[in-house]
Amino acid sequence: MEDAEWECTVEAPVNIALVKYWGKRDSELILPYNDSVSLTLDEEKLGTRTTVRYSASYEEDSLVLNGKPTVISSRLSNVIEEIRRAFRKHAVRIKMNAQDLMSMSRYRFRIETNNKMPTAAGLASSASGMACITFALCTALGITESVDMSQLARLGSGSACRSIHGGLVQWEAGKEEDGSDSLAKQIYPASTWPELKFIVLVVDGEKKKVGSTEGMQRSMATSEYMLLRPKQCKDRIQEVCWAFQAKLFPALAEVIIKDSNTLHAICRDSYPPVNYLTRTSEALIDFVHRLNEALGDVCVAYTFDAGPNCFVIFEEKHESLLMWLLLHTFIENDVIDPTIHRQPKWDDDELAKYTAIIDEFSNYRNSVKSYYETTVGSGPKVVNAPRLI
Amino acid sequence: MEDAEWECTVEAPVNIALVKYWGKRDSELILPYNDSVSLTLDEEKLGTRTTVRYSASYEEDSLVLNGKPTVISSRLSNVIEEIRRAFRKHAVRIKMNAQDLMSMSRYRFRIETNNKMPTAAGLASSASGMACITFALCTALGITESVDMSQLARLGSGSACRSIHGGLVQWEAGKEEDGSDSLAKQIYPASTWPELKFIVLVVDGEKKKVGSTEGMQRSMATSEYMLLRPKQCKDRIQEVCWAFQAKLFPALAEVIIKDSNTLHAICRDSYPPVNYLTRTSEALIDFVHRLNEALGDVCVAYTFDAGPNCFVIFEEKHESLLMWLLLHTFIENDVIDPTIHRQPKWDDDELAKYTAIIDEFSNYRNSVKSYYETTVGSGPKVVNAPRLI
Repeated sequence: MEDAEWECTVEAPVNIALVKYWGKRDSELILPYNDSVSLTLDEEKLGTRTTVRYSASYEEDSLVLNGKPTVISSRLSNVIEEIRRAFRKHAVRIKMNAQDLMSMSRYRFRIETNNKMPTAAGLASSASGMACITFALCTALGITESVDMSQLARLGSGSACRSIHGGLVQWEAGKEEDGSDSLAKQIYPASTWPELKFIVLVVDGEKKKVGSTEGMQRSMATSEYMLLRPKQCKDRIQEVCWAFQAKLFPALAEVIIKDSNTLHAICRDSYPPVNYLTRTSEALIDFVHRLNEALGDVCVAYTFDAGPNCFVIFEEKHESLLMWLLLHTFIENDVIDPTIHRQPKWDDDELAKYTAIIDEFSNYRNSVKSYYETTVGSGPKVVNAPRLI
Repeated sequence: MEDAEWECTVEAPVNIALVKYWGKRDSELILPYNDSVSLTLDEEKLGTRTTVRYSASYEEDSLVLNGKPTVISSRLSNVIEEIRRAFRKHAVRIKMNAQDLMSMSRYRFRIETNNKMPTAAGLASSASGMACITFALCTALGITESVDMSQLARLGSGSACRSIHGGLVQWEAGKEEDGSDSLAKQIYPASTWPELKFIVLVVDGEKKKVGSTEGMQRSMATSEYMLLRPKQCKDRIQEVCWAFQAKLFPALAEVIIKDSNTLHAICRDSYPPVNYLTRTSEALIDFVHRLNEALGDVCVAYTFDAGPNCFVIFEEKHESLLMWLLLHTFIENDVIDPTIHRQPKWDDDELAKYTAIIDEFSNYRNSVKSYYETTVGSGPKVVNAPRLI
């Protein structure tokens, strides 16, 4: 048994914060300053796949990230050690037989993890990546049900904790110093609102000058707006949950837009100021407000994390209109598939109205190099259960 | 005497807020939501000149603005009526003889006012304009000493009240409903810190989509950051006054930069968000932080009002370096006068350091179309005292 090698494969999705996490109350344990809430995306397009091979005969843990051997960071190392500790507790609790316990305690992991979208491009690959590795290791050790995986993933990357669940997910900041109450929980499953759609618009930016960890520190140290943030987030999360339950898109959209703007307002208010948005990002903001004005209601929402990419959220019924407009304003021509996107049938008034919008943003033609369409997803999944190899 | 015509000419300067006015507690009386503090510029380059002709024989008030006959706005009309009312009170108080009182009460004004810089280009021409007309009319009626001209000018354009005084000026929001305690006062005269210099960089922007009155209303209605603003401004004004008294430029500069960023953060946090800055404005922000980093201290400050133009503030000792860098990064070549601006003498280290900055901002070459260099000024002045014509 000592030389036995095992393998399992899992996938975990990206999540998009609707009320944002910004600022840490403890940077070692990655305990956030405020509550946040997110939607977990379908992992098919925006997610991570991780295969773990493990054996008591391996000498050390190792990591291959997107095909490249990579040093295990101290944060990931924390996650792995915490998972081992959690396993030992679990083994004692279930009175595991001594031989299994000894063997499994000596497991070392060969982690191979691949993001389905560009890494470090502001597409939350660190969230799905850390969630995926956590889920893979817990699956390997058979402890997915007996631990809180959101707490373990959080140690690797704060927002990763929200990718452990599907649907609408809340991460409570918690109050305990050891982080024991800083957990992510599902509020509503993905099936609650299947008509929700996302387009992720990849906006070319220079490499971020200020990473999000550094940005958060600056905001905590210098922006007075942070004083209002914990209460503001609690209120906004309530609004999100209420709008989600009632499936009232305009109410949901308004909170999403406001909280995205607040995040970037706080960045601007930090010293020195931080700006994650490009001219194209700003034009996309204007475009969405302009379109909502034309539609007479807040039918489309945008949100930006600490980067220039735009996450557009809407209901299925507005998909063909929105896609057509985006394809004729921002999205580069050669990534368009004309068999999928046909011009919606418009009467003369609509034609005039929407052509005006296309004309207004003509300066931004081809400014978006690629895009992903996706939906709400139901969280991490096991692709191949643990098996001997 | 009835047909006698009089004339006087005055000038009033632009002022630049260091801690900004944003939001009204009463929009009719233009009573601000928070205290603000400003520096009055020298009126030679950035100011307004107003000539008033007046006679009891004229039938009505009239206005010629920058050479064009212009309808008197309701705000300006308020100012004129309040000045007439103030004159009558004054006349009673000094027991003016009846004939003079009757004659002067019937005066109508032909106001001719010219801005020395482009109007409505975000160069605070409304502040100097309203201050100048107020000062001209009060000069005409001989009441400059017996009224608070800052209160009268405020009715025409909020920030105009600060242009009534020279040097460092504080506008107290006040608490009274009738605005009787919402006054601008000089804190320190211009002579306190003659080494202070300004460069105003005129950044081409599209015409403002959202005027400042509309922007303020949105912020008052939607940005929670406004809740912190009154207290924040009081604290920052104290810091400004302290730094000014001690002539500690880095301390002054940090407050100036922070408050400018806060204003634009609040704009972004408003719903729908408002953005007054262009890509060039943002690059100028980065440039100043980059230069301060190279200098090892906050030797240069920037501030932006509700527009894209950049007001750069610094001490004379940094003038040649700063001008050279600006001329080789942002300012359009053909507005440079090579006889004035020579390259400072740099050793090899300095050369490398400053050349790197010039290279970093090479994308923004010629993005600033014009600029004004100026200093702190001592407030409105009478160019020609009232005389019979």
